[in-house]
Amino acid sequence: MEKQYLFTPGPTPVPPQVLAAMAEPIVHHRGPDFRLVYERALSRLQEVFRTNAPVLLFSASGTGAMDSAVANLVSPGQRVAVVTAGAFGERWVAICEQYGLDVQRIAYEWGETPNADEVGGAVAESGARIVFCTQSETSTGVVSDVQALKGAVGSAVLVVDAISSLGAVPLETDAWGIDVVVAGSQKALMCPPGLAMASLSEALWDDLPQARGFYFDWRRTRKAQEVFDAAFTPAVSLIRGLDVALGMLLGAGLDAAFERHTRLGRAARAGIKAMGLELFSPDDDSSSVVTVARVPDGVDGTELLRHLRDRHGVTLAPGQGGLKGKIFRIGHIGWFDVFDIAAALAAVELSLVELGADIERGVAVTRAFEAYEQRVAV
Amino acid sequence: MEKQYLFTPGPTPVPPQVLAAMAEPIVHHRGPDFRLVYERALSRLQEVFRTNAPVLLFSASGTGAMDSAVANLVSPGQRVAVVTAGAFGERWVAICEQYGLDVQRIAYEWGETPNADEVGGAVAESGARIVFCTQSETSTGVVSDVQALKGAVGSAVLVVDAISSLGAVPLETDAWGIDVVVAGSQKALMCPPGLAMASLSEALWDDLPQARGFYFDWRRTRKAQEVFDAAFTPAVSLIRGLDVALGMLLGAGLDAAFERHTRLGRAARAGIKAMGLELFSPDDDSSSVVTVARVPDGVDGTELLRHLRDRHGVTLAPGQGGLKGKIFRIGHIGWFDVFDIAAALAAVELSLVELGADIERGVAVTRAFEAYEQRVAV
Repeated sequence: MEKQYLFTPGPTPVPPQVLAAMAEPIVHHRGPDFRLVYERALSRLQEVFRTNAPVLLFSASGTGAMDSAVANLVSPGQRVAVVTAGAFGERWVAICEQYGLDVQRIAYEWGETPNADEVGGAVAESGARIVFCTQSETSTGVVSDVQALKGAVGSAVLVVDAISSLGAVPLETDAWGIDVVVAGSQKALMCPPGLAMASLSEALWDDLPQARGFYFDWRRTRKAQEVFDAAFTPAVSLIRGLDVALGMLLGAGLDAAFERHTRLGRAARAGIKAMGLELFSPDDDSSSVVTVARVPDGVDGTELLRHLRDRHGVTLAPGQGGLKGKIFRIGHIGWFDVFDIAAALAAVELSLVELGADIERGVAVTRAFEAYEQRVAV
Repeated sequence: MEKQYLFTPGPTPVPPQVLAAMAEPIVHHRGPDFRLVYERALSRLQEVFRTNAPVLLFSASGTGAMDSAVANLVSPGQRVAVVTAGAFGERWVAICEQYGLDVQRIAYEWGETPNADEVGGAVAESGARIVFCTQSETSTGVVSDVQALKGAVGSAVLVVDAISSLGAVPLETDAWGIDVVVAGSQKALMCPPGLAMASLSEALWDDLPQARGFYFDWRRTRKAQEVFDAAFTPAVSLIRGLDVALGMLLGAGLDAAFERHTRLGRAARAGIKAMGLELFSPDDDSSSVVTVARVPDGVDGTELLRHLRDRHGVTLAPGQGGLKGKIFRIGHIGWFDVFDIAAALAAVELSLVELGADIERGVAVTRAFEAYEQRVAV
């Protein structure tokens, strides 16, 4: 009976229209009804990626698309560079190491924002021709400036994990010359998990080495998609949901979504600070998908999250790795408005009081609304 | 407004209860609510696989599980044997070749049933230590006797593609000593496509080589599942649906499902023959998941299927590869009863008459009901 609130940075809440589409009767993936949905979803993905290149769609978690990038772009033993500043940068390292690559780690502390000039210098020094990075590092709330990173790495291929940022934060794939983008369905695209995407610039297609692995072979998937088919039976229900969600996102406008996320980030930060909590994620507009706060002294972070969930039905995300118990994360990716931020802040405030923390009461939500009201310069 | 009938051998119709579960609000994959569903679904999968070994669950199409078997079991350049008798045997070959293996093809004509003694002899002669086969070859309607195949290949590892057979045809993974089984959600498990599974015997775990690829690394997935976690954000909606569907399947009893499929196959064959059509799939109880008929002379097979679909809302499957236009396939896998067979037969009969074929009218459905009524010896 208790209402449940999902404020994790993935999976994220899915609009009822999308859930309803998921419950439609199954259709054959090669029939004309589905082909129409599939063709439209693929075309809408290109709009969201802001690319004219095909966007490859896989039935898989987002990590499947990351795996596919390494399996299709890199030859055995090749030197690659990975920018790391959190759990998802570490995932690139783990994938590259599993493929036996010579991995040069360009490492930042968790919570730091990668610096484009430093990354460019390190890449030039190493001679790596492929660079992996993370646009939104959901473990810390840091959003990297991938346009600057692409400028800094020059002719090296830049592979951007945009899983938690696509549709929330600007990503001009073609205009910025981003070589490869991977994404997933369960973040700002407002769908359940289970679909992964990859786009790569037309120039890259000619020089792809032989893919390692079969299921994620980019050439096979591209060839099938060219005739609006899928290489293997696709997750038809999820793709129906994706089509509906992308229609909603594009109908309201992608720029409006970016502005909304910026304002949601402002609202969340203002509320956190108003309570007297310390932000862990950057205190500026760069950070608009996940707001991360330090757990106040005297409170056990694991207990705080358990209390929020079991007492109030509110699910936030804990810290990952070495940050476990020290921070908590409020995701506001995708189907979120300012009233969701108000609910999350109010629940945090109430729970901290119930756990005996010494915080400022009764101001967080008001400050959040005020911060949200300020227009964003476009 | 027109009702739609899906009689393809995958995706297959999904019960409304499962579709409704798919539309439930998204929950966090690490929260206690989902963990309960996940744990139960994994345990139910073991019951359906009839194994005590863990069943690994991937967010992917069935082909992803096939890929995972090759990526985890075989070392580069190793000799393997593949039993081929249709499109899905060819898929094993394609996967093995993409991994650069030395593939010994034990080839049968499409429509033939592999002979265990012949397969055993060919495997012994080749010295292959890993053998890939297909339990239900949906392209032809042939179901192989995988118990006999395991007996014939002796100590070689037998990998069974049970994607379209699991839950429809007996598969005693542990009792028969089947080393590896791969399956998918969208056939007899009565779910939408998007989930893939693999089980392997405990004895195999110790000697696994380093996995090629990251996403489908069996060790990583097993380690996560041991604490009822997933290695990567799983397709929570599909897994909820799977849990409901497996509950229905096991609630009615797996043996009852096997018997039902046997009787559905009898009914479909009796009806096809009563119309005066020629069966392409074997005319015996071995073939109980897909019934395949030859398109009668004077009728264009592609036109027949288009007519069925566009005029009557009935989707059957065409022939694949060299059989395109020559055969049509009626899937009766999963959520099917005898009235579905009656509807499929009636639609085929009506369409053939409308297309001017000279067939026997008015007897197919009655013969189907009669054949269905005979009890199956257990």
